[in-house]
Amino acid sequence: MSNDDFKYRIDIGSNEMAIVREALEEIFPFWKELLPEEKEMVKENARVETYGKGVVINRTTEECKGLMAVRAGQLRTYILSEEGREVTLFRVQEGEICVLSASCLMDSIIFDVLIEAMEPTEVIIIPSSVLHQIKDKNLYVELYLYKTATEKFSDVMWTMQQILFLRIDQRVAAFLWDEMQRQKSMTITVTHDEIARYIGSAREVVTKVLRYLAQEKVVELKRGKIDIVNKEKLKKLL
Amino acid sequence: MSNDDFKYRIDIGSNEMAIVREALEEIFPFWKELLPEEKEMVKENARVETYGKGVVINRTTEECKGLMAVRAGQLRTYILSEEGREVTLFRVQEGEICVLSASCLMDSIIFDVLIEAMEPTEVIIIPSSVLHQIKDKNLYVELYLYKTATEKFSDVMWTMQQILFLRIDQRVAAFLWDEMQRQKSMTITVTHDEIARYIGSAREVVTKVLRYLAQEKVVELKRGKIDIVNKEKLKKLL
Repeated sequence: MSNDDFKYRIDIGSNEMAIVREALEEIFPFWKELLPEEKEMVKENARVETYGKGVVINRTTEECKGLMAVRAGQLRTYILSEEGREVTLFRVQEGEICVLSASCLMDSIIFDVLIEAMEPTEVIIIPSSVLHQIKDKNLYVELYLYKTATEKFSDVMWTMQQILFLRIDQRVAAFLWDEMQRQKSMTITVTHDEIARYIGSAREVVTKVLRYLAQEKVVELKRGKIDIVNKEKLKKLL
Repeated sequence: MSNDDFKYRIDIGSNEMAIVREALEEIFPFWKELLPEEKEMVKENARVETYGKGVVINRTTEECKGLMAVRAGQLRTYILSEEGREVTLFRVQEGEICVLSASCLMDSIIFDVLIEAMEPTEVIIIPSSVLHQIKDKNLYVELYLYKTATEKFSDVMWTMQQILFLRIDQRVAAFLWDEMQRQKSMTITVTHDEIARYIGSAREVVTKVLRYLAQEKVVELKRGKIDIVNKEKLKKLL
């Protein structure tokens, strides 16, 4: 972690913290099922943390932080092989809740998931220790955790189906298509290495596919950027 | 489905059904959390079904049968690509409960999972319609479903990590090792096609790896069987 990462790790003022506390009700869907004393406990212990781009927040289940709501920025959850290969499971966008950062609270989850800030990211955290006490007494909170985890795993299964069953050129094409729509631009800012990590492949393989797509006049390759020059042809590859 | 499949689809006698009803308490972990009238409802509606080897029980979430406990035999859950490629998620053994056969009760599950009888298999089913009524009122039952689903997905993530990150020869070796221990024999009864389906690869690839292992004197290949001739060498490949 470089010093640069810390420039985003700022404390928010007490005024803003008061605003965050008032907003908890709207952020966490199980709020209405909490007892008054449980609400008080969450309000007192919820905190805001900010991470620089590329900071890995959760490394193993042991360091599990708690339930996170993204206030600004974006998180990425992924798994890692012993050789350092990554596969992205899903992203957590602004306004969404990351339940896998509380995976240590769920006995049923036994694999390691990593969570990384994709850009400077601000999150509201209900710490694991607090949530642990509440979920042991409040069935709704436990149900919320497992229900949300099941939902996420169901999404992940979809991703895995893509990875397992799609041909590599289709996977690259699908990534470019999604990014074009997400970035709302025909020019996508991304490196070959980043694409490889997203789709769970090797950089060399991605470069080969991109060169093929350039040759077919579907894209034009630039330094750190890819121009989509034929949207129709790209769509046909999906 | 051929006529052959039906030879296992027998009705059990009323005496045996009485035994099954009495056993529900030990089979389903949420039993103690059911109200007396809910217990009565489950007892009245639980049924026993028997499937022949190779019968696919759940084809889509629409046909979702309900919560199944395996009394005898073995189930396999898997996903299927449009081209017919399969990846096994997990097996459900005698005495275990299959929660994905009740996936329609969980809004959070949105992908299609298939369930196949690996051998003549007898299951006790609490039908979806009954479970649906109960879980809407009884939080424990809903929590049980989601908790068990999360547990299974966590196992599946482990399987996926194996598939995504292991080299193909390691995957074949790991399969042979596991089967050797499961079948408690140095002779494994399995076809190349079956191995391919288990590890999510193609038959041709598996055949190539097996020929390599035979050449290295790790295994000997026979019709429909594989002899492990050097356990130590096999272990080193893991």
